[in-house]
Amino acid sequence: MNNNENQKKNKLPEKLEFNLWYNDIIERAGIMDIRYPIKGLYVWYPFGFKIRGLVFSIIKKLMDSTDHEEVLFPTLIPKTEFMKEALHIQGFEKEVYWITKGGNTKLDIDLALRPTSETSIYPIFKLWIRSHIDLPIKIYQIVNTFRYETKSTKPLIRLREITSFKEAHTVHETEYQSKLQIKKAINIYNKFFSLLCISTLIIKRPSWDKFPGSDYTIAFDTIMPDGKSLQIGTVHNLGTNFSKTYDIKYEDKNGIQKYVFQTCYGISERCIASLIAIHGDNNGLVLPPNIAPIQVVIIPIVSKLEKNNIYNECKRIYYTLKKNNIRVYLDDSEQRPGYKYYKWELKGVCLRLEIGSSEIKENTIILVNRSTKTKEKINQKNLLNIINIKLKEEEKILFSNSIKLLKENISYHDNIDDIINKNIRSVIKVPLCDSEKCGVEIEKISKLTLLGHDLKDHYYNNCIVCKNKTNYIFYLSKKY
Amino acid sequence: MNNNENQKKNKLPEKLEFNLWYNDIIERAGIMDIRYPIKGLYVWYPFGFKIRGLVFSIIKKLMDSTDHEEVLFPTLIPKTEFMKEALHIQGFEKEVYWITKGGNTKLDIDLALRPTSETSIYPIFKLWIRSHIDLPIKIYQIVNTFRYETKSTKPLIRLREITSFKEAHTVHETEYQSKLQIKKAINIYNKFFSLLCISTLIIKRPSWDKFPGSDYTIAFDTIMPDGKSLQIGTVHNLGTNFSKTYDIKYEDKNGIQKYVFQTCYGISERCIASLIAIHGDNNGLVLPPNIAPIQVVIIPIVSKLEKNNIYNECKRIYYTLKKNNIRVYLDDSEQRPGYKYYKWELKGVCLRLEIGSSEIKENTIILVNRSTKTKEKINQKNLLNIINIKLKEEEKILFSNSIKLLKENISYHDNIDDIINKNIRSVIKVPLCDSEKCGVEIEKISKLTLLGHDLKDHYYNNCIVCKNKTNYIFYLSKKY
Repeated sequence: MNNNENQKKNKLPEKLEFNLWYNDIIERAGIMDIRYPIKGLYVWYPFGFKIRGLVFSIIKKLMDSTDHEEVLFPTLIPKTEFMKEALHIQGFEKEVYWITKGGNTKLDIDLALRPTSETSIYPIFKLWIRSHIDLPIKIYQIVNTFRYETKSTKPLIRLREITSFKEAHTVHETEYQSKLQIKKAINIYNKFFSLLCISTLIIKRPSWDKFPGSDYTIAFDTIMPDGKSLQIGTVHNLGTNFSKTYDIKYEDKNGIQKYVFQTCYGISERCIASLIAIHGDNNGLVLPPNIAPIQVVIIPIVSKLEKNNIYNECKRIYYTLKKNNIRVYLDDSEQRPGYKYYKWELKGVCLRLEIGSSEIKENTIILVNRSTKTKEKINQKNLLNIINIKLKEEEKILFSNSIKLLKENISYHDNIDDIINKNIRSVIKVPLCDSEKCGVEIEKISKLTLLGHDLKDHYYNNCIVCKNKTNYIFYLSKKY
Repeated sequence: MNNNENQKKNKLPEKLEFNLWYNDIIERAGIMDIRYPIKGLYVWYPFGFKIRGLVFSIIKKLMDSTDHEEVLFPTLIPKTEFMKEALHIQGFEKEVYWITKGGNTKLDIDLALRPTSETSIYPIFKLWIRSHIDLPIKIYQIVNTFRYETKSTKPLIRLREITSFKEAHTVHETEYQSKLQIKKAINIYNKFFSLLCISTLIIKRPSWDKFPGSDYTIAFDTIMPDGKSLQIGTVHNLGTNFSKTYDIKYEDKNGIQKYVFQTCYGISERCIASLIAIHGDNNGLVLPPNIAPIQVVIIPIVSKLEKNNIYNECKRIYYTLKKNNIRVYLDDSEQRPGYKYYKWELKGVCLRLEIGSSEIKENTIILVNRSTKTKEKINQKNLLNIINIKLKEEEKILFSNSIKLLKENISYHDNIDDIINKNIRSVIKVPLCDSEKCGVEIEKISKLTLLGHDLKDHYYNNCIVCKNKTNYIFYLSKKY
């Protein structure tokens, strides 16, 4: 398999040509095979799927440790259930795949392939909830979902089959509790993205761009190297919209029937797209230690005389690290060292250890850091300790790089002339009213998409469009 | 959620009424909600999904440790690819769900929801394989697959969405290597079922009942408490059937283009059905320690005077066990002990620890074994040691029970009069030729399904139907 993943011999494009670079690294680093014969569907290679596994094990741990229970609901939704929530339908109907036949038989009721699972889960919530003692409910599932995308598709970013969608759904007695859960969800996702070393903007979407059927949507956006924003997480307050549609009620302590309050929040493999795009460089992937399938690679620098000696020493170090839960690989293949450096840099291995005869004599090891490319000679004593420190450092470096990238790609403007016809290739912040009129106007002027405003409302500025007072700062960008 | 899972208050039916018992325990023990509004689709409850997670982590570990790499292929298959392998189509076409619309648009090419993934994976194998150095390939994926079942559906057994299908696919240079892989696959599955404490028959299916498109199929069958057999694993030798259809060739060491040899093998959530059915009893689930989401439950037997004392002691024991990777739960709810016993027996917790004031005085604990219902007083010293021994013992007991059940439900017959019009409710073995004629005849006479013969061919008997010499013993039963 490795042979196939790395077949192409020409070089990775420069990261400055981001689109070329991204499409190429997906294939070349062994993330996905993009040659599946349906548009927008891709094949996860073993190496890519290991990254996927590590990323989703982090989110699973975060969910489990915050009282969410994992469940699994069916993929197929009867048209009758799917069509109940009017706004929700409007938002999704153009994108739904419909199953109309089983074998050669036309189905009585068409079945939707879930584009998202509200209409699959909520009719069952109605059965689960009778009384206040059944609440709160906090569940999540990791599933594949489907969208008939008409726009151009892109691996991990715009898909017809989202292979890895973690969606949480919660149910509460009161509006206050559901709002509290929204805050908790934001905290969980914040923690998650920090473990991926991805810096994000937390933005309340404009009312005309919220999740169909929700009261409001808060999104996690990050900025890709080409200055476009990528939505990598969303948190929705559904209020009582769905509970009214699906008649989900509970009996409160006083025996009164009330509609439940609901939230839902999701993360997909887009977070892996952001990982690859933000941390990667001209040599390939750069992966945070939490996520790297291989954290340390050991390369023997073999001279004919001392071959056995060097291999044995490499093996000894390999087992020491492995025993201590470092994800380590010993590359004792016949390839020359330069080829191995290139190969493992491409795969985003955090640290490289080189061991040759002079290192053995001196009791040292050459250590090379993937992200900074620094090379240093370290003492074999305390190797494990040094490796652990270096991995921690790598995490800090990547996160601070991501924070820096985000900052550098955001500029503030309160003069409309800065924005008109400027072909802006980054994120801009502007003071703006929370009105659709000014929102639509600024999108027209800037040729950007309004992402929404941050969660603060204590700014005192004049709207860049209508000049009235506003408490909000809005973000705009080109959007994936 | 727990409240919902256990809402019903009436008792579990006797296991002798197997069908009633099975359908009831699925819901009552919190495995699945069977009320989803599409026939043959079910909702995994949190507790059931934990069992599913433990079972599939075992098979994952077995796959990973035998050089299989995990991948993920798309769910949707273009009709053009699906329709290439003639025998494969014949086998599946009546069961395929077809997607014909995206949004309101009719699709150019209908898409199949995978009933199994050969036709999704093998066109990509063609791209991955050029030369003998690309071989062997051994991959697996855990996916949902779909069958438009017209027969009556049953949770975990006959589904329209198989939520958890582990399928492996391997590619080899020679027929010899593919046959060797078949043997390895059988060993892996044997190991897997023994870890589930499930005893199985390993049976070569008759040629007219093999996997569509394969050379031959070897199946793992187990016997359910009602005497019907349940197929819980299959291993297929595909020969060059698919490689010829999908034109999958490699260049051998001498530069000659040759077709590859392929195998595939699968296990689904049916293995969980067998776990539940075979080990369970009139009180509920009985789970092997490997699989039990809770291995040990601690129940404080509280007297008013010593409440704090007892709770503290229970907590101390809880943390001791938890620290040592025992899956332990302390039930310190307000319910009375009898209610708790009932609840945790239903959920298949392997061991129950009861701690009251007299136990604290004596430095003892009451230990109750789920499967044997034996109750004993143990010394607190070496508690961890005792627990580990008891869990190992439990595993042995369950496996030997399963072996016994299997043996008791198989009888050998070489006289046709034993079989005619006997309404047989178990598995029978008969000497039989390996010919379709005698196979069809014995099915007609016995009103059973021919499962196939075991892998030995050194028997010397006369065929029960045609009286000619035969080397084989065939199995028949009613079949799920």
